[in-house]
Amino acid sequence: MANFLSRRQFVIEWGHCDPAGVVFNSRFFEFFDCGTWALFESALGVKAPDLAGTFGIFGIPLVDASARFLAPARFGDVVEMSSQVKEFRRSSFDVEHRLIVRGALAVEGHETRVWATRDAVDSSLIKSQPIPDKVIARFQGK
Amino acid sequence: MANFLSRRQFVIEWGHCDPAGVVFNSRFFEFFDCGTWALFESALGVKAPDLAGTFGIFGIPLVDASARFLAPARFGDVVEMSSQVKEFRRSSFDVEHRLIVRGALAVEGHETRVWATRDAVDSSLIKSQPIPDKVIARFQGK
Amino acid sequence: MANFLSRRQFVIEWGHCDPAGVVFNSRFFEFFDCGTWALFESALGVKAPDLAGTFGIFGIPLVDASARFLAPARFGDVVEMSSQVKEFRRSSFDVEHRLIVRGALAVEGHETRVWATRDAVDSSLIKSQPIPDKVIARFQGK
Amino acid sequence: MANFLSRRQFVIEWGHCDPAGVVFNSRFFEFFDCGTWALFESALGVKAPDLAGTFGIFGIPLVDASARFLAPARFGDVVEMSSQVKEFRRSSFDVEHRLIVRGALAVEGHETRVWATRDAVDSSLIKSQPIPDKVIARFQGK
Repeated sequence: MANFLSRRQFVIEWGHCDPAGVVFNSRFFEFFDCGTWALFESALGVKAPDLAGTFGIFGIPLVDASARFLAPARFGDVVEMSSQVKEFRRSSFDVEHRLIVRGALAVEGHETRVWATRDAVDSSLIKSQPIPDKVIARFQGK
Repeated sequence: MANFLSRRQFVIEWGHCDPAGVVFNSRFFEFFDCGTWALFESALGVKAPDLAGTFGIFGIPLVDASARFLAPARFGDVVEMSSQVKEFRRSSFDVEHRLIVRGALAVEGHETRVWATRDAVDSSLIKSQPIPDKVIARFQGK
Repeated sequence: MANFLSRRQFVIEWGHCDPAGVVFNSRFFEFFDCGTWALFESALGVKAPDLAGTFGIFGIPLVDASARFLAPARFGDVVEMSSQVKEFRRSSFDVEHRLIVRGALAVEGHETRVWATRDAVDSSLIKSQPIPDKVIARFQGK
Repeated sequence: MANFLSRRQFVIEWGHCDPAGVVFNSRFFEFFDCGTWALFESALGVKAPDLAGTFGIFGIPLVDASARFLAPARFGDVVEMSSQVKEFRRSSFDVEHRLIVRGALAVEGHETRVWATRDAVDSSLIKSQPIPDKVIARFQGK
């Protein structure tokens, strides 16, 4: 069964673009990050800044990110971005982001993130934790 | 007597530039921020991340920033930036940044910052504090 | 008579914020730029990427930018930004941006921009041009 | 035989970091881009802004980018970045970036880029082109 899918529409800004007139690559990773927060906010019904507090975690740090750039996006282009968790594992999960521009898939992104807490003894250490069943259930609409 | 002046040289990156082929304005405010940290590091002889701890402050938050853009800077241009405190007041100070590109003044920036601590009772509140005499003396080479 | 005022609402992203947990100053200058494009798009009824072509200009380059930071904005905060041309001069104009966060004015920004064309002889040169009366009239709702 | 390897040292800035106090992920993709330009500049002995003109190309657009985040980088950390082409194919190539922080591999990045020209008939189209032998030879120190 497919997990909850979050959609977001936004417009490419002048400042997103480079001298070739297309979105500079790092901006897409900002868009992905933003998409993941929006996805969790929608799926869990908790405001993004309250996620850590609500679930007693440090956060959902990124351990792996990638993007395939299939078509350029330019100033003023409308982006239709969809974000979805493709797989939940014990303490990590994969998010897929698909950006549609002018009717075609322009960028595909993947993030692997960890459900993380601070170590009880040394708070400077971050440790992965099992993702609660209720969190996964919410993404599955249960 | 003029305060300590810090100089920094760097090269304009592709990702700094916009579709007009020139540095996008917000990047200069990143350069200014960077220049102020480098200035304090050099003048006070303390690593930037240790400034707050060394002086018992929250930081030096920005309350006012401005820039005049006189000439464009482009990908690959070498920037000679100089940063200097123009005035210390009781608990705030003004930093001036001058960016020379191709031999001419390209951008002039000003920042006003506050010497700030967290409130002892409500740590979410930030309060300005008198700048210690020894800090000002260091900037004056004393 | 006041000029056309454009309003935009957006949410502060995780990636906008710095280790102090507040929006890093350069991001506000991105917001201002975005606000000016949206303002011109709305006032003139022309898509932002088509502005230059429609009016036979190179663009509206920034010559001066400033911001006053009155209150912090944090991850998840909703920003109500209003943008308005405060003064049109012969070939330049001033835009004011006001950002309301949690009901209070958090940041006030000013930009001075030039109505600019490329030089007919040397296209690498940018020259200011008189702002057409019809452009100013549109901002005044005429 | 290993290709030319370019090294670059830089310091993490305050504005690179997010509310968790570590470098925000998109910044690493800026670092990678910067590393690739520096690598080409060093290997080919041509200033980065002159690469397109010198080799009659549009540029070296990115088609794939990825990063593994193994350890955090914080404000003030010194980064030792090495960048190297791992494989040249007919018209594309892979660049690997390794970022060492505090003596350990903190981030590993990969970019796939294309040697691209504008289409002779429709200049809005970008086409891949065979990478000249002399370019590859320079990377191999020949």
